[in-house]
Amino acid sequence: MKQKKIVTIGGGTGSFTLLSGLKNYQYDISAVVTMADDGGSTGKLRDELGVLPPGDIRQCLVALSDSSDEWRELMNYRFESGGLEGHNFGNLLLSALEKINGSFSSGIIEAIKILNVKGSVIPVSEDDMRLTIKLNDGCIITGEKELDENQQIRETGIYEVRLAHPVRANKRAVRAIENANFVIIGPGDHYGSIVPNLLISGIKNAIKKTKARVIFVAPLTNKMGQTDGFTVEDYVQNIEKLIGKKRINFVVYNSKKPHKNMIKRYEKKEGKNLLVMCENTKNKKYKIVEGDLLRKEKIIKENGDKLAHTRAFIRHDSDKLARAIALITEYSEYKSLNIS
Amino acid sequence: MKQKKIVTIGGGTGSFTLLSGLKNYQYDISAVVTMADDGGSTGKLRDELGVLPPGDIRQCLVALSDSSDEWRELMNYRFESGGLEGHNFGNLLLSALEKINGSFSSGIIEAIKILNVKGSVIPVSEDDMRLTIKLNDGCIITGEKELDENQQIRETGIYEVRLAHPVRANKRAVRAIENANFVIIGPGDHYGSIVPNLLISGIKNAIKKTKARVIFVAPLTNKMGQTDGFTVEDYVQNIEKLIGKKRINFVVYNSKKPHKNMIKRYEKKEGKNLLVMCENTKNKKYKIVEGDLLRKEKIIKENGDKLAHTRAFIRHDSDKLARAIALITEYSEYKSLNIS
Repeated sequence: MKQKKIVTIGGGTGSFTLLSGLKNYQYDISAVVTMADDGGSTGKLRDELGVLPPGDIRQCLVALSDSSDEWRELMNYRFESGGLEGHNFGNLLLSALEKINGSFSSGIIEAIKILNVKGSVIPVSEDDMRLTIKLNDGCIITGEKELDENQQIRETGIYEVRLAHPVRANKRAVRAIENANFVIIGPGDHYGSIVPNLLISGIKNAIKKTKARVIFVAPLTNKMGQTDGFTVEDYVQNIEKLIGKKRINFVVYNSKKPHKNMIKRYEKKEGKNLLVMCENTKNKKYKIVEGDLLRKEKIIKENGDKLAHTRAFIRHDSDKLARAIALITEYSEYKSLNIS
Repeated sequence: MKQKKIVTIGGGTGSFTLLSGLKNYQYDISAVVTMADDGGSTGKLRDELGVLPPGDIRQCLVALSDSSDEWRELMNYRFESGGLEGHNFGNLLLSALEKINGSFSSGIIEAIKILNVKGSVIPVSEDDMRLTIKLNDGCIITGEKELDENQQIRETGIYEVRLAHPVRANKRAVRAIENANFVIIGPGDHYGSIVPNLLISGIKNAIKKTKARVIFVAPLTNKMGQTDGFTVEDYVQNIEKLIGKKRINFVVYNSKKPHKNMIKRYEKKEGKNLLVMCENTKNKKYKIVEGDLLRKEKIIKENGDKLAHTRAFIRHDSDKLARAIALITEYSEYKSLNIS
């Protein structure tokens, strides 16, 4: 049987989670990755070495890597002091490979060999990509890192996110999308990981043009000042507006409620309407695959009396997510079956 | 046929050159490496991360590595700007592996896997090793890096080099020396790469005790303020005094004169009596294997008129050096043959 070609579009932890699950299926995977990150270790390397941002690429490489656990741990190792403080070893590897091989893409190809990566990892653009964030009060802020750090965004709210200057789509990304059987958008931070990819004309056009089925993995939670109160339908509309065409065929949605303590903690930080709800979908043109997609968080007793979560993140589970995708790729061959 | 066990003792470029050649023979190789370096990238990592010095170990790993040229290039890649300036990628790899694995030695074992290294690379000590340099005028200077940088040393001259505080020999190094068929001391900077190893009691005692034949590879050149006018016999005496026993069975000596232009350039920098001569060896107890051991330097025309050397280094050639060692290891089986 011919391998189905899947292209994922995103970045960060979302792509890491999705790819870690998909890797265990017999897909031909290409991960198209945002290049807009300019914070942390990645931001420093961009500024100081003039390299392209390695952080999101690193996460995708590690997710698809078939090398030893030691290698994976090494890639994510973060130096803790001195001039190297905060740098991920994997980021340094990618930056060195870019310098040695003359371009970021050739560097990634070397990294794919070194890390025994199953699939392709493709930067969405090889140009210097920067975001401009317009707030509801008209203020303009530059830099993707501001999404996480800037208090003004949380208070005022985002009006729209744009590219600071146009960049060209990576031709390999365009070709992968055009030749795909399935294109998966998300999961990931809407403005941080998803939207930047869709701001590039070449990518939008490829999504319009491809015969692939397009799957959108809805996020689990909304972000204050960014996507307050967004429903699944809001996300879909926002994304299809960016693409310029109703292109989403399937939505993958988590319908299981997280533990109430976890919600409480999150709402304290991110405000109300934290969870992404799926409602008012009467006129929807897409099919929804829903179910429990949550990663199980261990609950441990802290100080003997209070319930606490070891990792207070509401996250997708890699395997559950991959099963939902597998259902869709199988389903597409049995069109008589029904999904709500 | 059982593989002959060879232990090299040294560090830096000398060990790199020797091991690169020996790798192509069927020896069971263990490289014992000085841990006294505290300059450059290595020095910064020692100070900022509290790791053991990775530089000399890196060179030995690369020399014995059977991995791709890309990997070897990556290991030696040096960042050129920003907070990473001057750091070798390979040094960062070793420092990260030390941190992840909890000790420098376990980190090296991981690196040996990653780099497909043929043989063992053993830090001479796992303690924090520092050198104290006593000058002829009584002044005391601390730090191995001073050997290369300190003008006072060049002018006043070294009286002796000691450990700033005693360190324990690595047990694996001791075991390797005790079980070896051949121990090769050098080539390398006398005070920078050779002597530090011989200042450790456990190492001296192992060399005294081992049944191995001990080979000394004489350096090609002397260093101003350090080994001015030293002959082969001076080096041997100096080393045997440190060991505390007449233990050297063979000396490997280059008897080919380098190109006169190269000598001129070197003498300008390092003063007279640059070349290590082999004389007054009447009462010697060791055998000398001599011949052309020089690396051929390409001579190119610069500006159309002057002869210039692409790399103005008087260096051993890896293959010639390895052949000299092979002659000795073979010869030892035919004791009736004669070497001067």
